[in-house]
Amino acid sequence: MHKIGIFGIDFYLFMYTYDSLFEFTCSIFQAMGCPEKDATLATDVLLSADLRGVDSHGVARLSGYVRLWEAGRINANPTIRIVHESPSTAVVDGDGGLGLVVAPFAMQVAIQKAAQAGTGWVSVKHSNHYGIAGYHAMQALAQDMIGMSMTNASPLVAPTYSLKRLLGTNPIAVAIPADKEPAFVADFATTTAANGKLEILQRKGQDAPEGWIQNKSGDVSTNPHELSQGGALLPLGSDRDHGSHKGYCLGSIVDIFSAVLSGANYGPWVPPFVSFLQPPADPVGKGIGHFFGAMRVDAFRPADEFKAHMDNWIRTFRAAPAVEGEKVQIPGDPERIMEANRRVNGIPLLEPVVKDLQATAEKLGVAFSPVEC
Amino acid sequence: MHKIGIFGIDFYLFMYTYDSLFEFTCSIFQAMGCPEKDATLATDVLLSADLRGVDSHGVARLSGYVRLWEAGRINANPTIRIVHESPSTAVVDGDGGLGLVVAPFAMQVAIQKAAQAGTGWVSVKHSNHYGIAGYHAMQALAQDMIGMSMTNASPLVAPTYSLKRLLGTNPIAVAIPADKEPAFVADFATTTAANGKLEILQRKGQDAPEGWIQNKSGDVSTNPHELSQGGALLPLGSDRDHGSHKGYCLGSIVDIFSAVLSGANYGPWVPPFVSFLQPPADPVGKGIGHFFGAMRVDAFRPADEFKAHMDNWIRTFRAAPAVEGEKVQIPGDPERIMEANRRVNGIPLLEPVVKDLQATAEKLGVAFSPVEC
Repeated sequence: MHKIGIFGIDFYLFMYTYDSLFEFTCSIFQAMGCPEKDATLATDVLLSADLRGVDSHGVARLSGYVRLWEAGRINANPTIRIVHESPSTAVVDGDGGLGLVVAPFAMQVAIQKAAQAGTGWVSVKHSNHYGIAGYHAMQALAQDMIGMSMTNASPLVAPTYSLKRLLGTNPIAVAIPADKEPAFVADFATTTAANGKLEILQRKGQDAPEGWIQNKSGDVSTNPHELSQGGALLPLGSDRDHGSHKGYCLGSIVDIFSAVLSGANYGPWVPPFVSFLQPPADPVGKGIGHFFGAMRVDAFRPADEFKAHMDNWIRTFRAAPAVEGEKVQIPGDPERIMEANRRVNGIPLLEPVVKDLQATAEKLGVAFSPVEC
Repeated sequence: MHKIGIFGIDFYLFMYTYDSLFEFTCSIFQAMGCPEKDATLATDVLLSADLRGVDSHGVARLSGYVRLWEAGRINANPTIRIVHESPSTAVVDGDGGLGLVVAPFAMQVAIQKAAQAGTGWVSVKHSNHYGIAGYHAMQALAQDMIGMSMTNASPLVAPTYSLKRLLGTNPIAVAIPADKEPAFVADFATTTAANGKLEILQRKGQDAPEGWIQNKSGDVSTNPHELSQGGALLPLGSDRDHGSHKGYCLGSIVDIFSAVLSGANYGPWVPPFVSFLQPPADPVGKGIGHFFGAMRVDAFRPADEFKAHMDNWIRTFRAAPAVEGEKVQIPGDPERIMEANRRVNGIPLLEPVVKDLQATAEKLGVAFSPVEC
């Protein structure tokens, strides 16, 4: 345990070994009734966020999944199946399962379709939150495929000029293999700033930069608590003059590919992740939706050629002259460096997260077993 | 001819009937040596920009294509062919042809692949500027398919923290069919502002908003002439705090899908559109690259179901409460309204564009025949 000051506030930070945190998380999923194989998979997906430094989407959310399961909104033992398909496409029904389990199933379908048809595209309905988008896209890399992953989410974002929240932060991930260089892995919300960044500002008691949020009247706001007062996150671009209509397009495309193609809920009907908010009473589909893609590189050109040019692309961009004190990064660089570090030095969890995990463990009769390092 | 004041400057504006402008443009392409069928197709693509209000990409560029042809950098009579394929993919070699002709060929390949395999994905090398991205994506709509289109372009954009221009404005278009509502048609550059907007400010003698451009040192600039002085356009998001790394990801994905998959030039090697700038002497591929996709809606769910939900999606978003004096628009709304207007009332061209077209006509021995309305 370490005492650290963040933004002038003292936090207690615990460092746990990845393996022990993995074992613990897996026990929690099994206590929910997940078969061992599903529990292991869900843990792998969830903790990939902690490894890659996306702390908001990792084990800190474990108690949220448990509460959704307690509320009967997650099926711990789903029958996930293909309900519609063509040579290069499928729709998967997640049967209300953990997105952490449904998404890997669907991504594997996309990869298998790609192996046969060159590309595979899978839209998913009746799912739940699937962790970080990048994990799923990256599954394609080992097969020399480009992987894509996107998901809709509960409405926190107002389209350009809208006073109403109609879209989620709807992330897009694209993973592209290279040869000697590490893969290109883009993974980003289609908003200017993710909700997790607002939470940090709330703790700091600091204002948000202009361009992240609007208040309930649609005016610029710097109040990080605005979302609880009828405000909204803004699409990537922030305002019309800076291209927010483009961020709105991106979020919409994610929503339509994930949910209108599959038969999930879209727009304002997407059910919330938090168990204390009820899903809309008039659903237009089932659960939340995802969309996955896999493209075999050699369905376009020999994989060796492609990967050699990707190395050249990556080296060219990384070597570009940069502003003082910064460098040009390749998408995926920061997360990869973070993962290498955390596999060795452990996963840091703040005290409130640890207490939340301890309470969840107690509730489910599971020992709190992570080992500090 | 009308005299109009724009930004305090008098311009002479000529209104031409669409049909007469079509006939004239087609004559120019034929005078370049394009077969009649290709000339007609190229004209249809080029003038779709004028119809839809994207004046920067329409007939105003005709003389630019002619100059590239004169410089031997456009092949007026190309043998466009598939050089690699799988059931759902292809790579098309444009043989140095007009992008206005190569792109429709490739999009048809994508549509034919989708008819068979559910989806079709085509990457294109050895092409040139292809007009507006949206035209090509929209070709899928009549077949109840979702259409996608993207292209790389000569480097005007600096990745986050880069001092060097490494990406083009690399647009993405996605067209999604609905039933009774008009289709959803997103078509946007992956930069905060398109170059055409800077040109307008140059004419006005006005500053650009912060967040559109940087100077050669990577600092914020509001000088609309910055690009001619070593500056760069900024990726969608403008700066790191407002998500420019996401715009950089998007532009990169377009570049890689269009050019690294196909074998075209990418990043700083993309040849310029203007004939007075030479292409790089050390090309890494052939010409510029595009990427097209077509997804049969009924490869996911029955088309009637999908389109009924798209109507609901569109109506829900369009009906959202908006800030005073504005409304929530569906992507494609402004362009569709513009097209309906211009088909009736004609295409407006500014005097410098008309003079440029007259000079081009004279050079090629073609009568300048557009009819004013």
